[in-house]
Amino acid sequence: MGNSTDFFNMNISELNEHNVSLKERYAEYKNQTMNLDMSRGKPCPEQLELSKGILDIVTSSDSLKAFDGLDCLNYGGVDGIPEAKELFSQILGVSSKEIIIGGNSSLTLMHDTLSRAILHGVYGSELPWGKHSTVKFLCPSPGYDRHFAICELLNIKMITVDMLNDGPDMDTVEKLISQDDTIKGIWCVPKYNNPDGITYSDRTVDRLANMNTKARDFRIFWDDAYTVHHLSKKPDDLKNILSACKEAGNPDRVFIFCSTSKVTFPGAGVAAVAASVENLNYIRKQIAVQTIGPDKINQLRHVRFLKDIDNLRRHMGKHAVIIKPKFEMVLNKLESELGGKNIATWNKPNGGYFISLNTLDGCAKIVVKMASEAGVTLTAAGATFPYGKDPRDRNIRIAPTFPSLKELEKSIEVLCICIQLASVNKILTEK
Amino acid sequence: MGNSTDFFNMNISELNEHNVSLKERYAEYKNQTMNLDMSRGKPCPEQLELSKGILDIVTSSDSLKAFDGLDCLNYGGVDGIPEAKELFSQILGVSSKEIIIGGNSSLTLMHDTLSRAILHGVYGSELPWGKHSTVKFLCPSPGYDRHFAICELLNIKMITVDMLNDGPDMDTVEKLISQDDTIKGIWCVPKYNNPDGITYSDRTVDRLANMNTKARDFRIFWDDAYTVHHLSKKPDDLKNILSACKEAGNPDRVFIFCSTSKVTFPGAGVAAVAASVENLNYIRKQIAVQTIGPDKINQLRHVRFLKDIDNLRRHMGKHAVIIKPKFEMVLNKLESELGGKNIATWNKPNGGYFISLNTLDGCAKIVVKMASEAGVTLTAAGATFPYGKDPRDRNIRIAPTFPSLKELEKSIEVLCICIQLASVNKILTEK
Repeated sequence: MGNSTDFFNMNISELNEHNVSLKERYAEYKNQTMNLDMSRGKPCPEQLELSKGILDIVTSSDSLKAFDGLDCLNYGGVDGIPEAKELFSQILGVSSKEIIIGGNSSLTLMHDTLSRAILHGVYGSELPWGKHSTVKFLCPSPGYDRHFAICELLNIKMITVDMLNDGPDMDTVEKLISQDDTIKGIWCVPKYNNPDGITYSDRTVDRLANMNTKARDFRIFWDDAYTVHHLSKKPDDLKNILSACKEAGNPDRVFIFCSTSKVTFPGAGVAAVAASVENLNYIRKQIAVQTIGPDKINQLRHVRFLKDIDNLRRHMGKHAVIIKPKFEMVLNKLESELGGKNIATWNKPNGGYFISLNTLDGCAKIVVKMASEAGVTLTAAGATFPYGKDPRDRNIRIAPTFPSLKELEKSIEVLCICIQLASVNKILTEK
Repeated sequence: MGNSTDFFNMNISELNEHNVSLKERYAEYKNQTMNLDMSRGKPCPEQLELSKGILDIVTSSDSLKAFDGLDCLNYGGVDGIPEAKELFSQILGVSSKEIIIGGNSSLTLMHDTLSRAILHGVYGSELPWGKHSTVKFLCPSPGYDRHFAICELLNIKMITVDMLNDGPDMDTVEKLISQDDTIKGIWCVPKYNNPDGITYSDRTVDRLANMNTKARDFRIFWDDAYTVHHLSKKPDDLKNILSACKEAGNPDRVFIFCSTSKVTFPGAGVAAVAASVENLNYIRKQIAVQTIGPDKINQLRHVRFLKDIDNLRRHMGKHAVIIKPKFEMVLNKLESELGGKNIATWNKPNGGYFISLNTLDGCAKIVVKMASEAGVTLTAAGATFPYGKDPRDRNIRIAPTFPSLKELEKSIEVLCICIQLASVNKILTEK
């Protein structure tokens, strides 16, 4: 049934007929006992291969001194070696004084920054956030499940805000944060948003930087996870949030996070947080109590391998060569299987790791369940919303990078059959 | 003045005479404009050399799979690869199910474990510790300044307990913890204690395991930092605290911390926490929100380099060959310069990184200041006590490992002159 009839224009007998043929196709796939995983944004083995040189670049015969003379084999340097700060300053477009290098995980930097805010407040707080009876965060959604998990762990109440084509629904954001001083922050994945691939417009960045927040110690948690992860030759541009905040007279409003997890190796990369010098001085004291400092040898490896932003961009180009065909295949398949049927919409990202698909309302959970029963694991339905609850039960996150093209093709076929089956059933039920 | 007259047997004119000659020697050293650092327990370059093979042991042509098949280059494995757990289980004498591998810093594991206790409580807590109006910790002292810094950061009130020859003054510990349910924990460096080198006796371990704590969710923070760091051919034995706690019916009482910071590379090592399965399951959920998992490649490097406990012991033997002469030189020098003078006492550790010296009451601060003015940096006086306040102002921590023998000799000479000067002045003032 590769045709593209609008399902809503079919009569009951046409729908029933279609249902039978879809069930047959579904049963066929189910019999193949597949085991395919599209649930997480993991680089594929070919991508990991691109960075293997990093394993050979710092040996016992190489210099192990940082630019400032620090011996990277010994204690010292709680916030990163100068050359690592320089590299991240190029990636994020900030001064190297505005960078603290962390360990291997930007998630940890985000968790710890928020956890410290609960325990101690942020620069300028009158009270630790945890001393207020309620702390709330705005969560533009669909968004990143692990951000939401941090809020849940720390007892921060999440308020869902819609994602529009140019970022969060700023009218709603501005209204909420101007009235409620218990709203202490907002999660943002501003470039190639997880999962919908949207990049915030300049206007959105400016509004975030300029808005009047009732909480004086409001913070934007700016997870710039995909800042160099382009898929298109015309990559999206993202306005510099730290500069915008400075211009707006709110220099301390933002914490920017990023890592090389999807540049080199997930789990063995280097993470960084960028913010105003005042913000960083405030947390540096706490970090100095928390740790003897991040792994300096791994920072050396990264700097010597990635060199500078130009070389890093070339490196990311090689990633794109590997994963772009996977995104294209998914998009082509979605178009050929679901196009014109009026039962699903999806985005076409210029970068990042995901394709976000919306089914008819109320169909996402059943689709994910059916796909799973046919051996295709998708991100849990609802995961892209606070508390795992998608209010319209329609969002499905597709992570195309890890599976092979062949596996991916099968997975998407199964997905499209499940979506059609769920849609036919929904429409029949409602007729 | 290499003689060994008891200063308290000198008359005023003898003391004055001695004072003049000491001042001359002090001035000589001061003129040399030295810059010597004995402040922190850092391995010396020769020690770091011992582990340089670790930089070459995992290359792009080696297998990068963990024992369980996990690709160490990609996401996955939030609590460590099986072979790293196995290695630490051998080091700590616990089951590998009782191990979670962390990042590069046991300090971070300690900070985060305590920070989580404040935010969420520990396994079995009725409330997060931070919900109580007061939380207190027992701090056997002299102890490790960074433990105390964590308590200060987290607003935990510290209660100083004396260190005796076989561990903390357990009569006091038992009395306090049986009466006060706001005392939630105790810091311990049970083997070659920082700074006094004391190893807890079996009886002390048993008493800690068996004592009746008024707080039901009391925890021992067991920083087994120097567990394999012997200096003597007859190393101290430390009774297994986790086994003792299990036998006492208090299996969840202890968190054990350790790392390879002073086995391989400080800052680029691997840290671990050991505890009951229930304790670990409780925190594993929180760790899974905090991080994508620790650096698995660095775990591979460590396991392939250190291999097993027997090989690790041989490796530590090489460390001892390098640093033992430094400890011996310090001890000989202290004996020859201060022996018999009745103005200072010091310990002779069988392992660890420090020598602890006690001056006459009220002399430590001035000694550290004078040494600093002569170019010898010592750990700040008071640092080995909660809030940086040594009640008798007498404890000085000597860290002999990092300087060269020659530098060390000079530093100790300066130290001994300063101690004598301060003592003469004190005695003269009081005569």
